[in-house]
This record gives sequence, C-alpha cells and structure tokens, in this order.
Amino acid sequence: MSGHATNLRLKLPAICFLLQLFTIILFAVFVRYDRETSARLWHEELSHHNKSNRDNDFYFRYPSFQDVHTMIFIGFGFLMTFLKRYGFGSVAFNFLIAAFAIQWSTLIQGFFHSFHDGKIHIGIESMINADFCSGAVLISFGAVLGKTSPIQLLLMALFEVTLFGINEFVLLSVVGAKDAGGSMTIHTFGAYFGLMVSRVLYRPQLDKSRQREGSVYHSDLFAMIGTIYLWLFWPSFNSAITAHGDDQQRTVMNTYFSLAASTLATFATSALVNGEGKLDMVHIQNAALAGGVVVGTSGEMMLTPFGAMIAGFLAGLVSTLGFKFLTPILDSRLKIQDTCGVHNLHGMPGVLGALLGALVAALATQDVYGDGMADVFPLIADGSRTATYQGTCQFFALLITLGFAVVGGSLVGATLKIRSLGSPPDTQCFEDQIYWEVNP
Amino acid sequence: MSGHATNLRLKLPAICFLLQLFTIILFAVFVRYDRETSARLWHEELSHHNKSNRDNDFYFRYPSFQDVHTMIFIGFGFLMTFLKRYGFGSVAFNFLIAAFAIQWSTLIQGFFHSFHDGKIHIGIESMINADFCSGAVLISFGAVLGKTSPIQLLLMALFEVTLFGINEFVLLSVVGAKDAGGSMTIHTFGAYFGLMVSRVLYRPQLDKSRQREGSVYHSDLFAMIGTIYLWLFWPSFNSAITAHGDDQQRTVMNTYFSLAASTLATFATSALVNGEGKLDMVHIQNAALAGGVVVGTSGEMMLTPFGAMIAGFLAGLVSTLGFKFLTPILDSRLKIQDTCGVHNLHGMPGVLGALLGALVAALATQDVYGDGMADVFPLIADGSRTATYQGTCQFFALLITLGFAVVGGSLVGATLKIRSLGSPPDTQCFEDQIYWEVNP
Amino acid sequence: MSGHATNLRLKLPAICFLLQLFTIILFAVFVRYDRETSARLWHEELSHHNKSNRDNDFYFRYPSFQDVHTMIFIGFGFLMTFLKRYGFGSVAFNFLIAAFAIQWSTLIQGFFHSFHDGKIHIGIESMINADFCSGAVLISFGAVLGKTSPIQLLLMALFEVTLFGINEFVLLSVVGAKDAGGSMTIHTFGAYFGLMVSRVLYRPQLDKSRQREGSVYHSDLFAMIGTIYLWLFWPSFNSAITAHGDDQQRTVMNTYFSLAASTLATFATSALVNGEGKLDMVHIQNAALAGGVVVGTSGEMMLTPFGAMIAGFLAGLVSTLGFKFLTPILDSRLKIQDTCGVHNLHGMPGVLGALLGALVAALATQDVYGDGMADVFPLIADGSRTATYQGTCQFFALLITLGFAVVGGSLVGATLKIRSLGSPPDTQCFEDQIYWEVNP
Repeated sequence: MSGHATNLRLKLPAICFLLQLFTIILFAVFVRYDRETSARLWHEELSHHNKSNRDNDFYFRYPSFQDVHTMIFIGFGFLMTFLKRYGFGSVAFNFLIAAFAIQWSTLIQGFFHSFHDGKIHIGIESMINADFCSGAVLISFGAVLGKTSPIQLLLMALFEVTLFGINEFVLLSVVGAKDAGGSMTIHTFGAYFGLMVSRVLYRPQLDKSRQREGSVYHSDLFAMIGTIYLWLFWPSFNSAITAHGDDQQRTVMNTYFSLAASTLATFATSALVNGEGKLDMVHIQNAALAGGVVVGTSGEMMLTPFGAMIAGFLAGLVSTLGFKFLTPILDSRLKIQDTCGVHNLHGMPGVLGALLGALVAALATQDVYGDGMADVFPLIADGSRTATYQGTCQFFALLITLGFAVVGGSLVGATLKIRSLGSPPDTQCFEDQIYWEVNP
Repeated sequence: MSGHATNLRLKLPAICFLLQLFTIILFAVFVRYDRETSARLWHEELSHHNKSNRDNDFYFRYPSFQDVHTMIFIGFGFLMTFLKRYGFGSVAFNFLIAAFAIQWSTLIQGFFHSFHDGKIHIGIESMINADFCSGAVLISFGAVLGKTSPIQLLLMALFEVTLFGINEFVLLSVVGAKDAGGSMTIHTFGAYFGLMVSRVLYRPQLDKSRQREGSVYHSDLFAMIGTIYLWLFWPSFNSAITAHGDDQQRTVMNTYFSLAASTLATFATSALVNGEGKLDMVHIQNAALAGGVVVGTSGEMMLTPFGAMIAGFLAGLVSTLGFKFLTPILDSRLKIQDTCGVHNLHGMPGVLGALLGALVAALATQDVYGDGMADVFPLIADGSRTATYQGTCQFFALLITLGFAVVGGSLVGATLKIRSLGSPPDTQCFEDQIYWEVNP
Repeated sequence: MSGHATNLRLKLPAICFLLQLFTIILFAVFVRYDRETSARLWHEELSHHNKSNRDNDFYFRYPSFQDVHTMIFIGFGFLMTFLKRYGFGSVAFNFLIAAFAIQWSTLIQGFFHSFHDGKIHIGIESMINADFCSGAVLISFGAVLGKTSPIQLLLMALFEVTLFGINEFVLLSVVGAKDAGGSMTIHTFGAYFGLMVSRVLYRPQLDKSRQREGSVYHSDLFAMIGTIYLWLFWPSFNSAITAHGDDQQRTVMNTYFSLAASTLATFATSALVNGEGKLDMVHIQNAALAGGVVVGTSGEMMLTPFGAMIAGFLAGLVSTLGFKFLTPILDSRLKIQDTCGVHNLHGMPGVLGALLGALVAALATQDVYGDGMADVFPLIADGSRTATYQGTCQFFALLITLGFAVVGGSLVGATLKIRSLGSPPDTQCFEDQIYWEVNP
C-alpha cells in the first residue's frame, strides 16, 4: 500500500497551485491580445484597412468554437461516465485536465505559431487550437481512465501538450502537411500516446477491479449524452480552423455524411458480432463516432459526399470489430489495458484518416479545386509541390506522429510510475470513493 | 412466438448494409457539391460575382443548423427516454433511424428541389432540410415507441421519407404554400402518419407490457434533457430556412414568445386536471413544447409577439388536455396506442398551426409587410395571388398533408406487419433487453 | 398544517393564467417589432440606408443568445438537480419561472430602455436582456430551492424582475456604469435578493428535512450537466451584448481564461479543506464557475488574459472557502438558509467582480484602448468623465445594487410569507412528492 498513498490533501493543491501560478506568470510575460481582440489594434484595422466589424474572425469561428468546446467538456466528459462507479472521476477529471491543458497549450502552440516580437498573440483561433490540443490529452485519458490519480493526469497533460505542440509544428510548418480536423495531430497522436502510457503503467492485478469496469443502466445513458454531442458537433470540429467560405461548409458536409454512414455500419456490425444478435452500447457509444475521426484530414478536401460515406462506413466497421476482437488481445497479449477502447475510436480510424488524407491529396487536380486550391493546398497552388508529393508528405506526417506518440507516451508513462503520485491500488481502480466524497 | 423472432443477428446487419450501400451508390451517381461548397465553383462566385466569403450561406445558417441537429438527436432522442426500461432503444434507435433518414432525404428532397443537369446539388440548406425530414420520422417513431423492431423502424423511415418528400413538393412547389417551420410538412404529417402506423399495428394484448409503460424518477430527468433542448432551439428550427435578415430574426422571436406562453399554460392546466393539484411530468415534458409547433407555419409572418403568445397559450392548453382526456380515448375507442402522445404534441398543435398560418396569410397587407412581402409571400408580392387566395391555399395544403399522412401511414403500417421483421411480442414491449445487452 | 395547504389545484392555474393573460394584454398594447425584426421597417433599412442582410444584428448576436438561453434553462435548471428528491422541482420550476420572467422582463426592460412613441420595440438584444434578467431570478431561486411553492416563486419573479429593471436602469442610464456580463446587475443583485428572501422565510425546523438536503450518486451527475454548460457558455454570456468586433471577442477570451483558472483553484482548495484530501462535488459544481461571475463587469475591458486568470483564480479560491466555512455560519448565526450556496457562487464573486470592474475602469488609458475607448467607456471617450471618475461610479453602482437587493429582498420575502401561497411544511422541504406525481 505504501506505493498507493491516495490521500491528495497536500499533493493535489500543491500541483494545481504551482501549475496555475506558473502559467499566469508566463501569460503575464508573453501573452497579448491579437489584432482582432485588442481595442486599440482592431480599431486601427477598422480605420486604416477599410474593414468592418463583420470581418472580425470572431463571427466566422465563434459558433464552431463553442461546438468544439462542448465536445471537449461535455462530449469527452460524459462519454467516459459509462463506468458504474467512476462518473465523478470521468466528468470532473476531464474538466480539470482540460481546464489546465487549454491554458498550457495556448502557451506552447503560441510559441510555435504566433510568436512575434517576443510576444504570443491570441484570439479566437488560438482558443480553438487550445481546445483541440486538450482533446488529444483527453483521448489519452480514455486509455488510462480509472487507473490514474488526478496528479498523474495533470502531469501527463503538461508533458503531452508540450509534445503535441512540437509534433504539430513539425507536421504543419516543417513537413507542410494538412490536418485541419486532426486525424493525425489529435486522434492518432492522442490514442497511441495514451496506449503507450497505459502499457508502461500495466497493472497485472487489474482483475481485482474488473467487477467495476462495466456500466449500469443509467450510466450508459449518461455516456450517450457524450456520444451524441460528439457526433453532432464533429462537423464543427473538423471545420473550425479551415479557410473561410466553401472550405468550412464543405468540411461540415463531408463530416456529416461520414458520421451518418459510420452509424449504420456500427449498428450492423454490433448485431453481427454478438452471439444473440443483440446490440452493445459500448459499440454505439464509440464506434459510431469513427466517421468523424476518419475524415479529420480529408474533410476539407474535395472528398465528395459519397467518398465521405465510404470512409465513414469503413471506419464504423473497423472500429466495432476492434472493440469485439482487438481490445481483448491488446490486453492479454500486448499488456495494453485500454479502458475506453481509444484504439478503436481514435487509433485505427485516425491512421485510416491519415492514409485517406494522403490519398485524396495525391489525387488533387486543378480542374477540381480551381482557385480554391490555394486554400486547401497552398503549396500545390503556388507550384512548389505536386499533388503526389503532397500525398507523400501526408504519409510521412503519419509516421512522424506515430513516432512522437510512441516514444513520448513511453517516456511520460515511465515518469508517471513515480510513487507518491497518488495512483490507486489495483484493487481500487474504477472507483470514485478514493478521490471523492461520495454519498451512499 | 414464431411471429416474433426478435433475434436480429442477420436481419439488422443485412438491412443496414443494404440501405447504406444503396445510398452510397445513389450518392456517387447523383450527388454533387453545390456552388457554395465546391472549391472551384465558390471561388468562381468570389471572382466573377463580386462576392466575399461572408456571403457564403454557411454563415447565415450554420448556427441554426446545429441547433436543429441537436433537437433531432438530443431533443427527440432523450425526450423518449422517459420509459423506465427503454432508454437505450429510445436514444439509440432514434440515432439509427435519423442517421439513415438524413441520407435518404438528401436524395429524395434533392430530386424534388435541387436536381439540375442530372445531378443533385447539396449544401447547408439541404442539410437542414434533411434534418427536418428526419424530424417527421422521429415524430412517427414516438407513436410506435417500444413496440417496433429497429428493422421495422428503418423500413418506416425509408417509406416515410419518400412520402414526406412528395407531400412537401406538392405543398411548396405545386400549391405554393408556406411552411418554413413545418407545422404541416413535419408535425402534422409525422404525427398522423405515425398514428396510422400504430393503428394498423394495434396490439390487443399490450396490457401485458403496461407495467413498463411508465417512468422512474431518473428516467424523467433524462427526458427533461430532451424537452429543454427542444424548447430552447425551437426558434432556430422555425427560422432555419426562412429568408435572411428580418425573417430569421422575426421567426425566432415569435417562436420564443409562443413557447414561453405555452409553458405557463401547460403548468396551469396540468395542475388543474389532476385530482390533487399535482403536476405531471408527462405534461411538462411534452405540452410545453406545443408553442413551437403551433407557430411553425406562421412564425415567419407578421404574427406580432402577442399573437404568438396567444397561439402558444392555446396550444399548451389543448395539448395538456389531450394528454389527460384524449389519449385514453384514442387507445380504447380508436385502437391507436400512442406511446409518446404525439397526437397531443405534434398532431393537434400542428393542425392548429396550419390553420393559424392560413389565417395570418389571408390577413397579409402591403402596409404591414412593405418590401418584405417578397420574402414571406412571393406570390402575393408579384401579384399572382391575393392574400385571401394564399390563405385558401394554406388551408388546402393542410388537407393534402392529412391525406398523405393517413393513406401513407396505413399502407406503410400494413407493410410493417410482415412477420420476420423482428417486432417484440406483446409481453415484451417497452423492454430494452430484447434488442440490447443490458447489465443488471 | 393549516399554513401549508400545498394543494395547488386552483391556486397555480389561477396565477399562471392571470399572469399570462395580463402579459399578453400588455404586449398587445405596447410591444412591437423593432427595425430589424419588422418586414417593412427592415426592408426600408435595406433600401434607404444601404444596408445588407448581413448587417442585421441577428447574425452578430443569435449564436450568443442561444448559448445564454441554454445557460438559463439547462445550466441553472440542471445545476440544481443535485438534490436527491428535488430533481423535478429544480429543472421544472426553473423552467416555469424563467418562462414567465423572460416575458415580464421584456416589458419592464422595454419600458426603461426601448420605449419610443408609446411602444416598446423588441429584437434579439431585448431577448438576450430578458434572459439575463431571468438569470437573476434563478439565482435567487437557488437560495430558496426546495423550500418554496411554485406560486411563491412566480410572485418572487414578478417583483424581482421589476426591481431588477429599476436597478439596471439606475446603474446603466443614471450612474453610467458598465456591467455587460452583470457582475452587479445579475449576480450581486440576484444573490443578495435571494439571500434576504431566504432570511425572511427562515425555517427554524428545517432540520426535519435535512436528510433530503443532499445528493445521491446520479443526481450529482445530472448537476454536472448544468455546471459544464454554464462553464462552457459563460464567455457567450459576458459577451452577448458588448459592442460588435473586438469587444465581443475580447470578452469571450477573458472569460475563457478566468474560468480555466477558477477551475484549478477550486480543485486545489476542495482537496485542501477536506480532512481526507477528497474532492467534494458541491465545490466542483459551483465554485469552478466563479471565474465567470468575477469578470462579468471587467470582461469587456482591457483586462489582459493574465489579469483574467488572476481574477478567476481568486474567485475559485474564495468561493470554495465560502462553501466550506461561510455557508454553515450564514445558516447558524445569520439564519440564512442558502440551499445552493448562491452566496459563494454569485454573491462574493459578484462583489469581487464589481470591485475589479471599478479598478480596471479607473486604470483605463487612451494609449491602451485607442479608438476602441468609445465602445467600452463612451463617457470617457467623449471627454465627459475621467477614468478615475468612471471607476468611482462603478463602485457606487455596487453599493446601489446591494441596497436594492437587500431592501427589495426583505420586502418581497415578507410578501411571500403570506399563508395560502402553498409553501411546504418544514418536514416536507426538498421533496418532489408535494407538488408532483412521482412514480416510485
């Protein structure tokens, strides 16, 4: 038991206060309003550049931002409440680590993407990106759900956000890959990072907690709140930072149809793989969402509606099969205990989405994209790349992401093995009472 | 029992795969991005027609679309979770059939409304209309909730979407009626279609399942999630496809006040008709929403705020009285078993809304509408109709809708009687365990 | 028992019908569509003032309105469902009184702010303000939750909305204070008004109902739905009526960071003050939101992101300490029974927010605000005030608000003591069965 001092009375306040104060100091030194958020600067734009308030990016992106925000805090938070005795930890630790991650990623992403004259300039787009980055952390959280203390989770967020920022910088700014909806940067990275953390933190005695690693009737309904919100707003997620105009609308539409097709594939496959033809809520809650993941990279491209539907259909199929056949093998053979099955929802569909993105990029033609090529593939439009080369870059971006995730997750997992971080004993996993006052 | 082989192992996958693959093929052949969604075409608009990205319809309609989308999947889905043992079926079959219906209705409505040069052109407005159409199917689902298999529901969606498209085409394009919020096309059609299906599928032995046809404490709270979201976003529903500018704003405001008034009428009537003066959650969950239905046709018109409030007040009153007095009679006398009381929430308020629309249209004057007449009543504005004639057309549109709904619902109900579609036996209605893996 | 005739069969219908009919009559006499909602008037704007439909305020404010609307009906409603046996009353009485308050406040605020030529002109901004005003009533509802009948609540709404309108008029139009997110007008006013009502309605025998004044496992999860939605959409709340452009975006960003910091402070403090280092859901559900309240006044100002984070951090800290140490003292010493702890979430953070607003206003300089000064501080921009004087006015606005709240709450509380308003006996508080049909 000495390795599992789960009393957080001093440790949790200490780390929360430290992280928050450190973040505030860095914000004070580095972070400033950008040209659209500052009273003085925006009014200079209005008077000197003939703009109107309608041109403020706020009106192009705020509705999408709020949908993404809902996905992060309601979607991910409630999706994980399916466990019978871990509802508090699911929704509230999700809340805690996302609230930290959005601050920390504003700094990390700011250093890489909007650092000018020694200052980070922030606005609505940095808020969306911060929420995106916290999404990757929450995916990793899904893999270790119920087996980690909030202190471990905050440290994981600290390191993972940093690595996310580096990987994203390499992909978007060095390799020149496109990944607006994050099939690679968010889903593939978050899933394999989390799976490696879970691998390193392998619990051989977890069977002693298995009786709590399931749902009760109402916990499955709470989880459906998360599922449906993720499903509804995924079109906003994939389109939130694409170019204005046709790009945002096309991304929304591709995602919408991909999700619809993955839903039918999930119901079909769920009944098919069950001995009695019954549906399984775990599949519906998760695999129906794979259609959003799989068009994360290609959603802004001229994928065509039926292309999006084929992609979604395959993603739902693969994801459901993963839950049925792969998750048990990951556990028994590879010692990867994946509480929420993030490998099925984010891992495989993320990899598929990256490959699909590479393919669709390689097929891009001037005839199909017209002058819109500059928005989707600026490096093809300005003649510095061919479509084939863009596709190749997309493929290498996937490999880089997998590398960062696997190496990073292993190192961070090792760090989290430090005793005194308050992780629960094997007999007390998936149990709120360790960290929460729970009424009977 | 032979008529009730509820094992779906092969049947459900077969129908899901078939419907999805058939849809994908039709999309591949017929469906294309429209001028606002295609990279090439939108950039032609930008350069040749002096447009800016701000003019893309996406920015006028996407927030409303997402509200409608939330109503369809969260609103309808959770509203039906009030049953104590049918929460999975409510929210998840809702999910399944809506995910199919939005695809199928994109095709059907596309053939009628945006078929040019052999192709269907789609964008944000077709997505809203597809969600609208699935709303009608979900209303019908409410009438047969707990008594039908997912296979029956998918077939119902297939046929109902098709009939919806025909009826809508006749109303809007042939008769020239206005019905932006769908008092007729969605609510009246969906309700009476579903009631006829339920009539044809009458179960004389349903008493054997009555002990499950009620709520428990927490299932009523889940249902309130659905109720409140429907109530909140109904202004977006009614305004989602009205003309830009004053029309959208006016429709929102009329719906907002109508709903507020129907809420007070519902609480008042619920206490009044209860022997002990206690409130009934069934009334609050449903009748408070009647204010949204009743201004579905007239919401875009110059109804005036107090006119909207009177309409909402009457709708809340009538709807609550319907739950108390009419639903038992429908069951005992007319053999219509209406699980969710859709006759009270969508049927009667829909008919009232159609009549109100006819009245407000007949009263339209140039003095009140000014140049805005062209947006609301284009056929009056261009001189091809008088206001009185428009009102008459509105009235006939209601009769046509009732005809399509009653005849169509009867035929489809008869089709769904086919054995081997997996419907539950009378003793096992309102029970998730037939179709779902349920943890104790 | 004679003082507690809780049968509402005639009383509730009577007051609902009366209030609704009275409101409809006043709307018929006084309320008209404004220039952006009327078909004729908006088309005059289009043709005579060279406007386009994009300029309609609807497109600047409707997404924010719907977020605020969700906070009022889902956020407040579900936040209060934490009680084990008062879920119906929480979400449904919230629904009832807000549905009335938005109508009544349209009239009251209309008389003070948009009364021209004998008519009140309404549009999207009046809808946001009506929702804001109902927010104040719902805060007061939190203080008396479980101890009042719906009749008392409707009467409280009637009087409180009226006083809210007067206080708001004095602050904004007489004193010239700024308070876009309502730290004073909504939170401080609503909290102290409700606390005074609760003080006057003090129940010495409330211990007989204490066993129901707590949560069960799933009721805490329902409450988290309310919490997370309030947290998500608070940026929309504070920015909903600020000026277009940089103001809306800046307010959103300040609120976002303030909330993130208050969340970490809440988790830290919750673990710190608990004997065993366990977290308390009551704190997470409430104190994490204090960051939204505390920047209600200053959010639109050039607060800087790190300034917002410091404010949020302190608010979360103070609020959690309030739940732990102050609420018991209020009850035992001051005889204020504050069911939801509104003093901790809205009272103290509201006062802090008012003081912060005064400070930030006093520090305003032309160098920082540039031409944006006219949007934030019009009276400084036009030279009629110094920044110091603006700060002083902000401070007096707080005192005025406290005066209105304390005196108003006392008087209204005394009115609500009238017998025959159906309040529950001390033994039956926090119990749905008094007013609701409840299935076992």
